[in-house]
Amino acid sequence: MLDETTRMNLLYDFYGPLLTGRQRNVMELYFHEDWSFGEIADHLGISRQGVFEAVKRSRTVLEDLEKELGLLSKHIRRKEIAEAILDQLEGLPEKEAVRRLLDELLELD
Amino acid sequence: MLDETTRMNLLYDFYGPLLTGRQRNVMELYFHEDWSFGEIADHLGISRQGVFEAVKRSRTVLEDLEKELGLLSKHIRRKEIAEAILDQLEGLPEKEAVRRLLDELLELD
Repeated sequence: MLDETTRMNLLYDFYGPLLTGRQRNVMELYFHEDWSFGEIADHLGISRQGVFEAVKRSRTVLEDLEKELGLLSKHIRRKEIAEAILDQLEGLPEKEAVRRLLDELLELD
Repeated sequence: MLDETTRMNLLYDFYGPLLTGRQRNVMELYFHEDWSFGEIADHLGISRQGVFEAVKRSRTVLEDLEKELGLLSKHIRRKEIAEAILDQLEGLPEKEAVRRLLDELLELD
């Protein structure tokens, strides 16, 4: 299981473009930069309660998008399949070229 | 290049869950079932203009989502990389097992 911060950062990577500008600001400072509600409130000139509400709302939006599109769970499954492919090629000289292609494929996520 | 209907059907596959129920209805009948505006209007009990507007709006929503998330273009690129991986394994007995895994991976899209 992913911890909450890692999960939110990943969901943000996948769905961030669908949040509003304000939601993106708050989520980046809170989950990515690890600022406190108070610091974010001072920085953005809004109340602590406003920051709290924005984080709560953004979380809900991100989790709803994951329920609808499942990009994070697909990403995790793709990584597992890529590992299974490399296991199939253990000891073969072709493995390195395939690994580079799989890396390129996974980086699309 | 994909023709317009194929592109819309693919974008609908990726982003359909993010449309409203009405938009989904109209898009399925128009692009998937190939009904006319008039037929859809009769079926749903709305005006032809209403159907036209719903199709136009849904198209815009789907294209905007593709601009933000790029799931269709990533899907196309993944298929190309999967082909490149199989090319690497030409003539090897491991190729079939890898093909099955790659099929599973691509079907996640």
